[in-house]
Amino acid sequence: MRSVCFYSDYGAADEFAGTCRAVMARIAPCVRVIDVTHGIRQRDVLAGALGVRDALPYTPARAVHLAVVDPGVGGARRAVALRSADDRLFVGPDNGLLVLAAEAAGGIVDAVQLTNRDLWLTPLSHTFHGRDVFAPVAARLAGGLALDAAGERFEAATLVRLAVPAPRRRADGLHVAVLQVDAFGNVALSVDAGELAGELDGVVELESGGRTALARCGATFASVGAGELVLYGDSSGRVAIAVNGGSAAEALDLAPGAAVRLRRVGGAGSP
Amino acid sequence: MRSVCFYSDYGAADEFAGTCRAVMARIAPCVRVIDVTHGIRQRDVLAGALGVRDALPYTPARAVHLAVVDPGVGGARRAVALRSADDRLFVGPDNGLLVLAAEAAGGIVDAVQLTNRDLWLTPLSHTFHGRDVFAPVAARLAGGLALDAAGERFEAATLVRLAVPAPRRRADGLHVAVLQVDAFGNVALSVDAGELAGELDGVVELESGGRTALARCGATFASVGAGELVLYGDSSGRVAIAVNGGSAAEALDLAPGAAVRLRRVGGAGSP
Amino acid sequence: MRSVCFYSDYGAADEFAGTCRAVMARIAPCVRVIDVTHGIRQRDVLAGALGVRDALPYTPARAVHLAVVDPGVGGARRAVALRSADDRLFVGPDNGLLVLAAEAAGGIVDAVQLTNRDLWLTPLSHTFHGRDVFAPVAARLAGGLALDAAGERFEAATLVRLAVPAPRRRADGLHVAVLQVDAFGNVALSVDAGELAGELDGVVELESGGRTALARCGATFASVGAGELVLYGDSSGRVAIAVNGGSAAEALDLAPGAAVRLRRVGGAGSP
Repeated sequence: MRSVCFYSDYGAADEFAGTCRAVMARIAPCVRVIDVTHGIRQRDVLAGALGVRDALPYTPARAVHLAVVDPGVGGARRAVALRSADDRLFVGPDNGLLVLAAEAAGGIVDAVQLTNRDLWLTPLSHTFHGRDVFAPVAARLAGGLALDAAGERFEAATLVRLAVPAPRRRADGLHVAVLQVDAFGNVALSVDAGELAGELDGVVELESGGRTALARCGATFASVGAGELVLYGDSSGRVAIAVNGGSAAEALDLAPGAAVRLRRVGGAGSP
Repeated sequence: MRSVCFYSDYGAADEFAGTCRAVMARIAPCVRVIDVTHGIRQRDVLAGALGVRDALPYTPARAVHLAVVDPGVGGARRAVALRSADDRLFVGPDNGLLVLAAEAAGGIVDAVQLTNRDLWLTPLSHTFHGRDVFAPVAARLAGGLALDAAGERFEAATLVRLAVPAPRRRADGLHVAVLQVDAFGNVALSVDAGELAGELDGVVELESGGRTALARCGATFASVGAGELVLYGDSSGRVAIAVNGGSAAEALDLAPGAAVRLRRVGGAGSP
Repeated sequence: MRSVCFYSDYGAADEFAGTCRAVMARIAPCVRVIDVTHGIRQRDVLAGALGVRDALPYTPARAVHLAVVDPGVGGARRAVALRSADDRLFVGPDNGLLVLAAEAAGGIVDAVQLTNRDLWLTPLSHTFHGRDVFAPVAARLAGGLALDAAGERFEAATLVRLAVPAPRRRADGLHVAVLQVDAFGNVALSVDAGELAGELDGVVELESGGRTALARCGATFASVGAGELVLYGDSSGRVAIAVNGGSAAEALDLAPGAAVRLRRVGGAGSP
């Protein structure tokens, strides 16, 4: 039996995630469901795709990853299930949400379009396929159902793929985007800390929307004084901006999607 | 052994729901607890009653439904447990919260007032009967305790019942109320889509607080262009208003309780 | 096998708590994890310490209490595990978060610094020890690992301890602080109801920031009329202020940390 790892943009204010949990408990009473997050930014498929991918190393082996960020629900987008080389399963809409994770899990070895309506709930709603399609299929796969029983195979090459914003180096510095802001106000940028290895050092000028600020590079929040800006590699491996004991998003007025330019202005120890 | 489905207005910011989960785990370590929602609008008993009722088809058979929206806690209202004809159990305050669901589950066949204080926690608080009365009783019922062991039978006819707002047809259109606004800004109205079968078609004028807007009827969000209003049957079977990719509640400034008038102004395909 | 009770300031908007849940499910698939709260005020170690302590009576015997409010993550603060006289375990940062609870659980009988890196995840992040250190250790302890296997013993007397604000009696009344405001707007004060036994009666003048209001003492919200202020002993045993059907925090403009003065102005039944 597999566990289910559940990701969505349903939030905590409504019954959407809970109803899906109930559906899974009804179909597969012994399957463990792990709510990884229901706080993905609404309708932000890229944020969801990165979230599922980044969580993978921390999840049980062979889990079914049920992910729902589905602004196109009820429209033409396919419902799919994927198997990765390391025998993880991924269930959700074909809008790019699952592909980054499945590829990080060794690559996609099977792709099935969910067409076996016997597994779905009836009546089928037009706006809540999390409840009516994805949760029931995930529960059955977790309980041992063969992937092929969920529908028809198709070529993984036809899956919708997302463009992940890449950092650009220019004369005036490194141009990146804000990928995510967490509840502490920490700001994750679209560049991996690994790419800047050796450069995350000293003092960096941050510029966004005409506003500039200086941040010191450090390993953690306490690397700088209280209320000061620190540039660090976050727990997902991305370059991020924080304020020690405060909110970098507020201090710099940054939200997901904002453009940020980074320019190193001093070595370690320089002001 | 029965599962527990747990509904409340406790929210995610405090420890209220978690303390109840701990109480249940302490009393009945093997019982599965499914958090259906803790996001019911605070003190909104009707919203809670509709939420429990609407979730029923998606919950495990024979579950104990523990529901707490309890503004009269510590006062004169009774604490009760009900059994429905399909052998579901419902535990909570006698303020109307449980009756809609129990009647939808085939009708109430047993009603017991929770008077067996041996099942409660001591000391008994005056403000948190979810923790001290309802969760302990629900956990014991889930673990197999007989309903009669929880207290004394009473006539179900004496249960407090809620008035569910009914739509009214007038010369100038159909008058309804906003029942619920979800975190996506989708607005559920007090009329079932089934009642408007054949009429949810074409273009409808919406009026609320002197403000009017046109919505196209459709099956799902993508039935209209991005940013446009759609009138549809939602996943709970109610007529609802959405903006494709946006928030209808914001666009129309609607909150629970607001009065809305619907008037059909054009057939399918008309502007 | 022990259960894990999980407390943090991670909130519901991000994947932090969920990633820790996944880590524990991966390491100890059969351990039950109870999310008591992830709504502790961000970086408020005292609020967390009181929350863990207050929850204790409601949690399963011998549970592992995993608590993470950790503004000093990645810095010099120790990571620790404690055992109390009643064989509960406490895992988290050495910043005062665990001590109040462990002492309430009969006193600390063993204190271990988490130094066994074999139990941690690799690579170790600098900013998310909940995921990389505390959750893995808690899961292993819940699964049966001996406490001494997690690291080296140290003297419990060297643990960081918090000052809990104490009420002060002066000529002009009782001076207390706001400890917590819940989502209903109920305001918990830094004085135990037991300390005011016999005095929580009649009418009390509340003063904060130059603003005064009268509250009637009562047992529960419905002890006063709708919209009126009530002073009562809350479900954690503290003196608290509520508005029946409303928000005392809004009515009196109170937030955690605010100073409040209480002065009895009339006996039971007086205006």
